[in-house]
Amino acid sequence: MQVDGKHYRSIWTERVSGQVQPLVCIIDQTRLPHDFSVLEIQSLDAAVGAIFNMQVRGAPLIGAMAAFGVYLAMQVDASDSGLSAACEKLLQTRPTAVNLRWALDEVNRVLSLVKEQDRVSASLQFAEDLCMADIDMCASIGEHGLALIKTVYAKKPANGVVNILTHCNAGWLATVDWGTALAPIYKAQAAGISVHVWVDETRPRNQGAYLTTWELNNQGIAHTLIVDNAGGHLMQHGLVDMCIVGTDRTTRSGDVCNKIGTYLKALAAYDNGVPFYVAAPSPSIDWTIRDGLAEIPIEQRSRDEVAKLNGMNAQQKASLISIVPDHIQIRNDAFDTTPARLITGLITERGIADANETDLLALFPEQA
Amino acid sequence: MQVDGKHYRSIWTERVSGQVQPLVCIIDQTRLPHDFSVLEIQSLDAAVGAIFNMQVRGAPLIGAMAAFGVYLAMQVDASDSGLSAACEKLLQTRPTAVNLRWALDEVNRVLSLVKEQDRVSASLQFAEDLCMADIDMCASIGEHGLALIKTVYAKKPANGVVNILTHCNAGWLATVDWGTALAPIYKAQAAGISVHVWVDETRPRNQGAYLTTWELNNQGIAHTLIVDNAGGHLMQHGLVDMCIVGTDRTTRSGDVCNKIGTYLKALAAYDNGVPFYVAAPSPSIDWTIRDGLAEIPIEQRSRDEVAKLNGMNAQQKASLISIVPDHIQIRNDAFDTTPARLITGLITERGIADANETDLLALFPEQA
Repeated sequence: MQVDGKHYRSIWTERVSGQVQPLVCIIDQTRLPHDFSVLEIQSLDAAVGAIFNMQVRGAPLIGAMAAFGVYLAMQVDASDSGLSAACEKLLQTRPTAVNLRWALDEVNRVLSLVKEQDRVSASLQFAEDLCMADIDMCASIGEHGLALIKTVYAKKPANGVVNILTHCNAGWLATVDWGTALAPIYKAQAAGISVHVWVDETRPRNQGAYLTTWELNNQGIAHTLIVDNAGGHLMQHGLVDMCIVGTDRTTRSGDVCNKIGTYLKALAAYDNGVPFYVAAPSPSIDWTIRDGLAEIPIEQRSRDEVAKLNGMNAQQKASLISIVPDHIQIRNDAFDTTPARLITGLITERGIADANETDLLALFPEQA
Repeated sequence: MQVDGKHYRSIWTERVSGQVQPLVCIIDQTRLPHDFSVLEIQSLDAAVGAIFNMQVRGAPLIGAMAAFGVYLAMQVDASDSGLSAACEKLLQTRPTAVNLRWALDEVNRVLSLVKEQDRVSASLQFAEDLCMADIDMCASIGEHGLALIKTVYAKKPANGVVNILTHCNAGWLATVDWGTALAPIYKAQAAGISVHVWVDETRPRNQGAYLTTWELNNQGIAHTLIVDNAGGHLMQHGLVDMCIVGTDRTTRSGDVCNKIGTYLKALAAYDNGVPFYVAAPSPSIDWTIRDGLAEIPIEQRSRDEVAKLNGMNAQQKASLISIVPDHIQIRNDAFDTTPARLITGLITERGIADANETDLLALFPEQA
């Protein structure tokens, strides 16, 4: 999508003269919106660090970064043990998102069929194919989600605006391009439908405030930032037509594990009759589990994510502040699980499914 | 309660030699937890500013500050028109909390029966009586709430800890002393019951992070700070035994208007069978209305409360940062309404009422 009018993906390769292998580039998402900075990822360890430190984040993008991480590892050690060590290291970075495991299982399966000397080119091809497949999936999710937005729009008075609430960032920065939850919104804009997005700040890491507003602003889509506490109140007062969020892991029964706080918004949507949709590309579906609450490990992250905040000080310099003293105890769970009963529908690349096993399997019969 | 081992109230008077009238002092709550600073409030305008800028906040304390504001105004103009102008000015500061209107109606009624030349002393007496009544009410709420905590504690295994979630700050800083939602917790500590408090950060103004943790830390009560997004997840995993929050306005039917985000926690508590209590002193009950959602005006505050944050920078200096660029549109509703159906009980100074008109009137028959 657009950054200052120029097209970017969240991860890409660049061929540089004098270098045999193309470089892997990302946007450093920890520096947005204050600074747009492109980083070259030069090694497996750098890829691991970029995922762990959330310079890249969002389940689909984590999967893509992991694939490129294997490509970088293969340049150093393309042996079977090198491959499994690289996959293991990447898998340990983030426990909740299932795309990571999915991408690593896939790359491992593909490379194990390939001779050592061909693994660099095969892993590069795999990563680039995965990116293209991700873009296609997101574009399809956008089209299916657009149909839902059109339905809401059709019931509005003339010149109506569709108000969509989203949590965290499930835009193009969380994928390779287009996004999951935001793809339908970008498609709606292209279709001439007036949309306005309520953007949850999304504490503690403020992906809504830092990333989603930045994306929407670059794309010219009307939006308003709100604190995470506000969504229920807006729904009570009829100011939200629908919610669309992403997912880090979806069970085969339709439970959705996503950014902490998603569950609270789903409760409010249910209580107010507001449709609550989850944009769920199939690599985010964990077909091996049914009970999201019991079976999905929830990552606990550092207290500093809550206690410290990045911003611009009065002198317009980037500044990190502590909002509470160091002695305050903090617990920081990164995700929560929204039970399927609160979800109106899952927007997959193959269409919309009700959040239950039967409907999901109707779209993905190969998983039956 | 305690600050570094010394007893403080949130508002008090001091007699100073050479001054005829006692001074009004407050703790500047906009500077906590980084700086403990006592402010002298010297005029009606200073009182209005202290309420509007939230140097004092919390429904009961706003009522007390308003009473002292009238006392300060009477020193300048004790006429009927001076009285009504002062009350009007104070009433405009914050639209949602009803204690403010209640305190001003009361002081107006009392002073209108008093000769002009006696109004300074009468208003001082009124304000001091109001403070003592508030302390008594909060202590009673503490005792009634303690009984609820004891019931939960009795069902715990030996050496069990009662985990209580609270939102915003409804502690002694929000009242004159003791607090409303925190009073039962202070009483439980005194009764030898192990309690642990989950403290919602409470964006945008972070009263949980800044004030509640500071209070609990000074009082030596175990607590853990969480982001506002986390409470539902903790309840899903059985980590919350009960919720206790405050209220800015309660309808006669038991709807509760409180800090934005309270409704989301009430939904999660209801969904997980966690008791959800509201500590509601009778001056916070608006007996003139029944429908909290339709009839309570919700204050909208400035974008800067969301966009800017106070903290300590790396040099341990107080620093204000902007977390999003100035062009980002922000909406900032300060309160939301929790429908009575989600509330387990209202803890009043006269006992516990179910959140409905019949039960409230059984405790307050004079309002029938």
